[in-house]
Amino acid sequence: MAENVACIKRFSAKVITKFICQAMVATGMPRADARIVAELMTEADVNGSDGHGIFRLPGYIRRIKEGGLNLQPNIKIDKERSGMALVDGDNAQGHLVMRFCAEVAIKKARDSGVAWVGAHASNHAGPASLYAKMPIAENMIGLYVAIGNANHLPPWGGIEMLLSTNPIAIAVPGMDSPPIVLDMATTVAAYGKVKTAAQRGEKMPQGWMIDKQGEPLTDPNKSGDGFLMPIGGPKGYGLALMFGLLAGTLNGAAFGKNIIDFNADFKTPTNTGQFIIAINIAAFGDVNSFKKNVDVIYRTMKASATLPGYDEVFLPGEQSYRKRQDREANGVPVHNSLLVSLNNLADSLGIPKLE
Amino acid sequence: MAENVACIKRFSAKVITKFICQAMVATGMPRADARIVAELMTEADVNGSDGHGIFRLPGYIRRIKEGGLNLQPNIKIDKERSGMALVDGDNAQGHLVMRFCAEVAIKKARDSGVAWVGAHASNHAGPASLYAKMPIAENMIGLYVAIGNANHLPPWGGIEMLLSTNPIAIAVPGMDSPPIVLDMATTVAAYGKVKTAAQRGEKMPQGWMIDKQGEPLTDPNKSGDGFLMPIGGPKGYGLALMFGLLAGTLNGAAFGKNIIDFNADFKTPTNTGQFIIAINIAAFGDVNSFKKNVDVIYRTMKASATLPGYDEVFLPGEQSYRKRQDREANGVPVHNSLLVSLNNLADSLGIPKLE
Repeated sequence: MAENVACIKRFSAKVITKFICQAMVATGMPRADARIVAELMTEADVNGSDGHGIFRLPGYIRRIKEGGLNLQPNIKIDKERSGMALVDGDNAQGHLVMRFCAEVAIKKARDSGVAWVGAHASNHAGPASLYAKMPIAENMIGLYVAIGNANHLPPWGGIEMLLSTNPIAIAVPGMDSPPIVLDMATTVAAYGKVKTAAQRGEKMPQGWMIDKQGEPLTDPNKSGDGFLMPIGGPKGYGLALMFGLLAGTLNGAAFGKNIIDFNADFKTPTNTGQFIIAINIAAFGDVNSFKKNVDVIYRTMKASATLPGYDEVFLPGEQSYRKRQDREANGVPVHNSLLVSLNNLADSLGIPKLE
Repeated sequence: MAENVACIKRFSAKVITKFICQAMVATGMPRADARIVAELMTEADVNGSDGHGIFRLPGYIRRIKEGGLNLQPNIKIDKERSGMALVDGDNAQGHLVMRFCAEVAIKKARDSGVAWVGAHASNHAGPASLYAKMPIAENMIGLYVAIGNANHLPPWGGIEMLLSTNPIAIAVPGMDSPPIVLDMATTVAAYGKVKTAAQRGEKMPQGWMIDKQGEPLTDPNKSGDGFLMPIGGPKGYGLALMFGLLAGTLNGAAFGKNIIDFNADFKTPTNTGQFIIAINIAAFGDVNSFKKNVDVIYRTMKASATLPGYDEVFLPGEQSYRKRQDREANGVPVHNSLLVSLNNLADSLGIPKLE
């Protein structure tokens, strides 16, 4: 999956944010909401989540244009107790819903110690780590789970696509070390990576997908003929299923056969489910002691001798953190195929091109 | 891993419970505590968790005899808020600590909707699903994570064993269907399975472990020369690490280099960390509607057509549920090698043999 550097241009986060914001406003999203969505989408790109930032813009715009998204939502708490809330996303852009949920979780966890906030009637919200990281600034740990918006995973041993990649992210703050941030799909590869490979004209490695006869599938353009492989076989299937019950069924959101494939249907509300947990470290003990202990774990892992063929041990989120340093300094790389698609979009919306 | 039926005897749950209880009492555990531990250990066996029931008795007894366990513990809440508690296990047998934590979590979640209860100074508590299932009877969902008591997993790309199998269990009640219960290590195989294979004189399949050169390791007696493989490579490593931070570091329990290998050191308190979350379904909506929706998911997965080579799709916990039907009717199978070890133990304790 080597990238052809000649096909890549870089744009500053500011330029990316402005472009996304203009596109959203041109499609009818109120400017304040468009700003929030644009900043979170750009944040995804800066963090290296290439399948979840500006790459998603054409799909999001198409959903708005076809009437599948509510541009004047009333995002609100449906039910709440001291340790939880259930939020009605009112079919808003997922970024708006999950930012709202993260704020509710953080506010509740200040008193309750731990707060779990679920959402229904939400939508795709970008990478899981965006939201898991929000509690960090408040000296809290974040945990986020989402239902994927297209079923590409059958139950283990089956061939009917009833499950999605249902990702989990967990973010833990350190004192001097960067936060440790896991962001993973329950499948070997997230579907966003398949889409990115297709757009770039690249093959997929064996192990990402199999076809309905159980044979390896490596052409991302044929992804509709096969399905993603769960991590650890039945274990990844089990995680995808349980996360689906927690983020979907428990919240009154779609799961299983009710999932709307947002790559094929841009009109029907997706009723996406997600949840976030904020864990107030101070409720468990001294915050600085905890953070220093996280630093010790960080350094201990980094110091491990390596297997033949490995130069270095990475902490979860460390490679994203390095990408962030690079992209803040040198801009966000945009592959030529994506740039063409974005500038066609700009033309159709009557906004300035990305250049 | 075919079992030689000639080497297996079956014993009723009642007989197993009595044997464990007598052994614990003979070693100095108060009878009321011994009864609770024996019932939970037997429950593990009845559910098919062969590596976590009576199989563990000789190790537990050795720890007590060598002074590594507190037989007169004062298990208590150290810190609490409406949505959480931190419990001091006072170096009690883990089953006692985690039963206490589950009760606290359930009680708190009745009001707060969701409650997260962590423990430090705990010990090995048997299979994760035992505790995740406890909230089910109260119309709650349970989620449990534990730190394993021996490091057999390096960080991804490394060779220093700094992590354990750190399992997770999630249990969700249905209406007419059995509960859906995931119970999984973050490694391809739990270490209990390696120990069981060693005791039975069986080889391990490739993929469970590798040696320090990265080559497959299949002899369970050489497990000390290699390490377990995480599910999904870096993803399983990431889960093991984050679960360690949440169940260990956050609770003030051991993690990383502080882990006491309970297979090698029977004297030092392990300061084991675990946590349980109880999620009160009624806080999110109508309990019966939720359970019926779980039934729909259950049936939908079961109804999936299968891949070549697979007869049936299983739900998480379904195979354990079937084992339970069999074992309740026909008794718990005990492998001859284990039976010999248990009866030697009985002799040394002066209690009746298992026969």
